[in-house]
Amino acid sequence: MSVQRPLQQLKKRATTSQCLHLQQKIHHKPRIWQPQARQMATVVPPVTQNSTGFKGPTAMVFMNMGGPATTDEVGGFLSRLFADGDLIPLGALQGYLGPLISRRRTPKIKKQYASIGGGSPIRKWSEYQAAEMCKILDQTNPDTAPHKPYVAFRYANPLTEEMYNRLLEDGFGKGRGGRAVAFTQYPQYSCSTTGSSLNELWKWRQRLESPTRNPNLTANEAEGSILWSVIDRWPTHPGLVEAFAENITKVLETYPEDIRDKVVILYSAHSLPMSVVNRGDPYPAEVAATVWAVQQRLGRKNPYRLVWQSQVGPSAWLGAQTSDTVKNYVQQGQKDLVLVPIAFTSDHIETLFEIDQEVIHEANELGADGRVRRAESLNGSPTFINALANLAKAHLDAGEICSRQMGLRCPGCKNEKCLAQKQFFMNQGKQDTNASLTL
Amino acid sequence: MSVQRPLQQLKKRATTSQCLHLQQKIHHKPRIWQPQARQMATVVPPVTQNSTGFKGPTAMVFMNMGGPATTDEVGGFLSRLFADGDLIPLGALQGYLGPLISRRRTPKIKKQYASIGGGSPIRKWSEYQAAEMCKILDQTNPDTAPHKPYVAFRYANPLTEEMYNRLLEDGFGKGRGGRAVAFTQYPQYSCSTTGSSLNELWKWRQRLESPTRNPNLTANEAEGSILWSVIDRWPTHPGLVEAFAENITKVLETYPEDIRDKVVILYSAHSLPMSVVNRGDPYPAEVAATVWAVQQRLGRKNPYRLVWQSQVGPSAWLGAQTSDTVKNYVQQGQKDLVLVPIAFTSDHIETLFEIDQEVIHEANELGADGRVRRAESLNGSPTFINALANLAKAHLDAGEICSRQMGLRCPGCKNEKCLAQKQFFMNQGKQDTNASLTL
Repeated sequence: MSVQRPLQQLKKRATTSQCLHLQQKIHHKPRIWQPQARQMATVVPPVTQNSTGFKGPTAMVFMNMGGPATTDEVGGFLSRLFADGDLIPLGALQGYLGPLISRRRTPKIKKQYASIGGGSPIRKWSEYQAAEMCKILDQTNPDTAPHKPYVAFRYANPLTEEMYNRLLEDGFGKGRGGRAVAFTQYPQYSCSTTGSSLNELWKWRQRLESPTRNPNLTANEAEGSILWSVIDRWPTHPGLVEAFAENITKVLETYPEDIRDKVVILYSAHSLPMSVVNRGDPYPAEVAATVWAVQQRLGRKNPYRLVWQSQVGPSAWLGAQTSDTVKNYVQQGQKDLVLVPIAFTSDHIETLFEIDQEVIHEANELGADGRVRRAESLNGSPTFINALANLAKAHLDAGEICSRQMGLRCPGCKNEKCLAQKQFFMNQGKQDTNASLTL
Repeated sequence: MSVQRPLQQLKKRATTSQCLHLQQKIHHKPRIWQPQARQMATVVPPVTQNSTGFKGPTAMVFMNMGGPATTDEVGGFLSRLFADGDLIPLGALQGYLGPLISRRRTPKIKKQYASIGGGSPIRKWSEYQAAEMCKILDQTNPDTAPHKPYVAFRYANPLTEEMYNRLLEDGFGKGRGGRAVAFTQYPQYSCSTTGSSLNELWKWRQRLESPTRNPNLTANEAEGSILWSVIDRWPTHPGLVEAFAENITKVLETYPEDIRDKVVILYSAHSLPMSVVNRGDPYPAEVAATVWAVQQRLGRKNPYRLVWQSQVGPSAWLGAQTSDTVKNYVQQGQKDLVLVPIAFTSDHIETLFEIDQEVIHEANELGADGRVRRAESLNGSPTFINALANLAKAHLDAGEICSRQMGLRCPGCKNEKCLAQKQFFMNQGKQDTNASLTL
């Protein structure tokens, strides 16, 4: 069946039906995810799941970009990263330029990972955060317990495919139903990050559970696929804001009391190519919302700027650049600077290498004398993990499938995968009208 | 006396001493504006002022870009606008290109003003808003009453010079002291807008009240100049957010109830050149903060985007563009769109002509069929005017001179006028160390 007709039908829906909820909300009448409709199908409960259908177990899937755990994984990581047009748009030349750039950069990037201890700590932190959050959820949300933690990385192990196969092995889907929450670990939504992870999740869901792609599935198996919902953005969640504020306060306390309020806070987020910004990507505005909320929480005692890091290549990226900002301020005599990684929740190469070993090193060479410092990443912060649990609880309690905002494509979007992905997630809980879409 | 040495001295101060308050705050120890120091000078009270010095009358000066009230004023308006490197950075060619562009654009822009009724309503609205706010303040803040409304436009009458001379005629300054509040009517701070207005205000203060520029001033006159404080940004003030939310709700109510929550809200702000964004201008992040707050207030029922309008010339500007966004969505079948002017508080050419006559007209030509609409500008909204009064009251009660953030230059700033201006305002209430700076 052609993909054209359904896509045209979806086009209207993707921009007019913006979000779904399981339950009626006070202010508006969202389309309801009908438990009845689901229960009418003969769903065999998964081995780990009881027969109540919408109760537990619940899979909590943390989505992130990931990073190579060892230097041997750097090549594979970079090749996936540069192959992803959602993250690094290289146009028609993606298939040629992507491998070329990733091969050329591999030796340099291997050295960077070697210098931060031989690999990225993001897997360790993600698995820890997910597991700890699930422990809390088991207490606070007995209805949907047990909550089972999973991690799905976009460019490193465990990849989305690996996570999905584990879900199936653990008794979810393939006729056994079960509920899974795709929980983005990017607090602010970008099509380059959360969008790319959702596209990948949708792709593997279609490959592994769509009846059209899997003609050997029985009718029951096709009917009882995993029901997905998405926590797609949480830039100003009070717990997230509190966790940032705590870590910023801690580093501010390392400065003498009489200058503490004069330290300039530089909130640093990964930049985006201007082509993505100009397409209408929501990320810059959501990062700014986080920054405003954290400043508000800190009582606006310190001056600050939102700056953007990790620009690569010759095309235009959003600024001001973190590295230039630090250099300029230090040269102007403003040496007391705190860098805050504001768009990523675990340590990664951009904090441990780029900020700690490059930006701060350069500042010291210009005479900063140790006065440029970094707030710790959220990593194992109990406040942060509690925030994750609160967020997840609110999502589960509300029966929300995604935010209203997730349904709206960027005004300049030409990516049909993105359109189909949004339509798939928004239609969760309804009949699988989208199963025939090919990838 | 050379400007060089003081500027070098200021450089450090401008980035380390970030904000001043008249009164001690709970969280931090700001530098205090010492009423005592002021009272030690022999200050002759202005004719309209009592002798308590820090009590009323208080001049409330609304700063904005302004607009030509008649088509005859368009030429002068444009020539000032294109001469302003803070707003339109044309580099070394400003003096040549500015007049050239403004002369070439004048006939076209005259027609635009003719089509919206022969002139900009911004003077009418600004004078009304300032006067109404002062009436409320006289009730809520008898200590600083009477509050006298003034308007100072950057490019149209009444210009800053005219406003300053009126202040002097009305009994402020020149030995008679008196307090004036520069209240920016741009809720979000940009060096192109509020920064440019403050540079202009500082310039005329130096020309009219600095002892060095006015050797005929007596010692008393020089000492008793106007004391300025600045309300420099208020992007998420609850009253502002409420006023926006009210007007958005009103226009949403014009759509049928069953689709009301599916209408896409497009928050539209004047764009900035990327050279200004990349210099570290705080405006994009503050506009995003407003948008987030308004969406929060509206209960996040509708999908939305923050988009940017009024790009001119060949250089790169921040996007996504408002006009392209509307065209793309309408062509995709998403015709129910509400445009919200989010960075300007009164109607102006960018709402009445660009949005109403260009963007919406084009949408209708593409088949939008009247479903693309605009939220009313704040104009005479009583909620908005109350918000202004609340903001001003909080400022007067706190004895604040400016926000902490105002003291911090952009990381890529090379504008020495900006540096000196910040230093001037931050030093208000202290001895006039800056009086010798030349312009």
